[in-house]
Amino acid sequence: MTKSREQGALEPVAGNGLLHRRLFLAGGAALAGTTFLTAKAAPPDLPESMKAPGVGLRAYGERSAHEAAVHRAVGATPGTTGTGSSRTPLESLEGIITPSSLHFERHHSGVPDIDPAQHQLLIHGLVERPLIFSMDALARYPMVSHIQFLECSGNSAGNNTAEAPQQTAGGMHGLASCSDWAGVPLSVLLQEAGVKPEGKWLLAEGADAAAMSRSVPMAKALDDAILALYQNGERLRPEQGYPVRLFLPGYEGNMNVKWLRRLKLTDAPVMAINESRQYTLLMDDGKAWRFYYPQEIKSFITRPSPGMKMPSPGYYQISGIAYSGHGRVAKVDVSADGGKSWAQAALQAPVLPKALTRFRMPWAWSGQPAVIMSRATDEAGNVQPTRAQLIKERGEPRGTPLVTAFPMGHVNCICSWGIDAQGAVSHVYV
Amino acid sequence: MTKSREQGALEPVAGNGLLHRRLFLAGGAALAGTTFLTAKAAPPDLPESMKAPGVGLRAYGERSAHEAAVHRAVGATPGTTGTGSSRTPLESLEGIITPSSLHFERHHSGVPDIDPAQHQLLIHGLVERPLIFSMDALARYPMVSHIQFLECSGNSAGNNTAEAPQQTAGGMHGLASCSDWAGVPLSVLLQEAGVKPEGKWLLAEGADAAAMSRSVPMAKALDDAILALYQNGERLRPEQGYPVRLFLPGYEGNMNVKWLRRLKLTDAPVMAINESRQYTLLMDDGKAWRFYYPQEIKSFITRPSPGMKMPSPGYYQISGIAYSGHGRVAKVDVSADGGKSWAQAALQAPVLPKALTRFRMPWAWSGQPAVIMSRATDEAGNVQPTRAQLIKERGEPRGTPLVTAFPMGHVNCICSWGIDAQGAVSHVYV
Repeated sequence: MTKSREQGALEPVAGNGLLHRRLFLAGGAALAGTTFLTAKAAPPDLPESMKAPGVGLRAYGERSAHEAAVHRAVGATPGTTGTGSSRTPLESLEGIITPSSLHFERHHSGVPDIDPAQHQLLIHGLVERPLIFSMDALARYPMVSHIQFLECSGNSAGNNTAEAPQQTAGGMHGLASCSDWAGVPLSVLLQEAGVKPEGKWLLAEGADAAAMSRSVPMAKALDDAILALYQNGERLRPEQGYPVRLFLPGYEGNMNVKWLRRLKLTDAPVMAINESRQYTLLMDDGKAWRFYYPQEIKSFITRPSPGMKMPSPGYYQISGIAYSGHGRVAKVDVSADGGKSWAQAALQAPVLPKALTRFRMPWAWSGQPAVIMSRATDEAGNVQPTRAQLIKERGEPRGTPLVTAFPMGHVNCICSWGIDAQGAVSHVYV
Repeated sequence: MTKSREQGALEPVAGNGLLHRRLFLAGGAALAGTTFLTAKAAPPDLPESMKAPGVGLRAYGERSAHEAAVHRAVGATPGTTGTGSSRTPLESLEGIITPSSLHFERHHSGVPDIDPAQHQLLIHGLVERPLIFSMDALARYPMVSHIQFLECSGNSAGNNTAEAPQQTAGGMHGLASCSDWAGVPLSVLLQEAGVKPEGKWLLAEGADAAAMSRSVPMAKALDDAILALYQNGERLRPEQGYPVRLFLPGYEGNMNVKWLRRLKLTDAPVMAINESRQYTLLMDDGKAWRFYYPQEIKSFITRPSPGMKMPSPGYYQISGIAYSGHGRVAKVDVSADGGKSWAQAALQAPVLPKALTRFRMPWAWSGQPAVIMSRATDEAGNVQPTRAQLIKERGEPRGTPLVTAFPMGHVNCICSWGIDAQGAVSHVYV
């Protein structure tokens, strides 16, 4: 432990105490002499847990009862129990994998209970050979697996209010999650069915009571689309489409049709209600943006975030997540002075295409009020816009009527957290 | 869909029907004309799930009741409920992430119930400043996160029998799992405590009734060791050490002390019972291998695997997992003729250091009996040995007495599955 403190490692790289990301990249050496807390020095008593054997082995584990406060925020449409959404508590999570029990939900008529032994998938329409697959038959096909995010196009629509809503990071942005998805490439099944030359689109239909229906262009179907059977190792969860869902990496959540029942090859989009009345962006000039697929580059800070309190001035790690439906995150810049100056955050490996990427930034908080924010750039060169830029493009914020258009769907603007002199964190517009 | 079938894509690359891995790398195109099944063509009736709304949104999700048969195989020492192990059902999983509910367990006195508000971690011994951390204090420190495997050194010891045991892939090899682990680099905490020059080892002690104790060399502690607080996004599961465990990437599972209570800096290993009597390899010549840390390069096929039945001759994807405590998997070769000829499998990205890596290999099964196996090589050049090579090095297999030595610990030999003319899969020694 004779390494000397790295010269200049604790010099600020941007306003209000941001430090160089090499503090983390170099392991602990550069942090020598940096005290995070004043620790107590009385040894703990022998805990009760050491005085008797613990509980037994279990066939299927559960989390600690002490973690019950970490849960999805459920919001159902009045008069229903299963129409609405539940949001991932991103402020309580670390790493890039979302546990399946906390993956966000968005349903239009609840979660069906489907027996995989009974469920079938039909591929029909403009094909040479209509095919029907049992789930066992589907599982015989070659599979691929990728760690990729999924985001509802209505995520972050909380920016659609005159005053910054006081919600947690998950309350604002929790319609985004990331899993290890595995399944059969759709291209393999389409090859077997034989798509006719005029088959340019594909209608995906769910087996839920909403009969969710979305049109998908053939280019995406033949690119990286899969019929997902597994999520984070095990079979899909019911709320994620058990036993099979369409998964379109990077595309808005609603198109990733759950409880998939039929794929119909067509020559044009069918203009289903789910893509003409819903999941359409109505602009101020009366025009609508439709078939607006990829989720745009986005990032936000999860630690610290609203609802948390920083206990004292000193050293902190700012941590958050970034992602883009257009590929890999190229960089994330962080500001601690409300956007006046920026410095580049460390990206936690692996940085995977169309996956959550965690960023980390060292910060010496002076104890004075501060505004922190992150701005991500993807490998395609897209940069996260400011809220003012988004409003200029889309028009002034309006309310978000349920089950009609999403005037503020696809909201990916920079999000700012304010920290007051007592360390309390809140959502602010800047 | 006018792409012509790739010339030669379906020509065998090794004996008994192994095909080139580019079949998967090139997407579906190369598979044109390859029929996996004869599908039925009657359209399914409108399912019951579409006739009424489904169940409501949930704060914390659960898997489908139809998946209840997928669970850990629990084996407790007679007279106890919590001493023993439970194995991950690897044959039922896909991708590289193990769901936390199915992560393997290995306990020496059950799973303690620890209140994180009461738990403390002490760093003492040969340090300048003994430190005690509450879990809240620990969570303030900078974190890192990595997708990495964990394996019990007793995994795969089923090869220690005269006849090949008839178990599933998880039954044989299920003391290995892979998670997104996040926590505080141990190096940061040791810097703050100030390790004295004579502090060369570190005794890690758990807060379980077994008081699990293992000595860790300082080089590992300062390299990539973390105090893990999160597993697959959420806080650690109780059976993985909630609220904090030592995590030593690539090192044998037992050293990754759970329910971590104290870290004592010492000048030498303490020769705790858990490292002198247990977790020691006793050789035929009476000598013992101790402090034998990294889990060696290993691979095995999970699909098809024992307990499964291949429904008919035709095209299949052989799939399995590989990993090494020495870094990344460099390649996996697969044989379908009992080791006479080999061909290289496709590695599913991402291939991460000290993480499970999934491999995939196309196979045209003729319907004749076959023996399939995989052989992995890591980036350090280590190659998985045959069972005969392992026996030559270690001596003839002996029984594995519980809670004494593990004469067949660190077993990483090539594993073979036999397939009979009816498609039934079994474990065979070759």
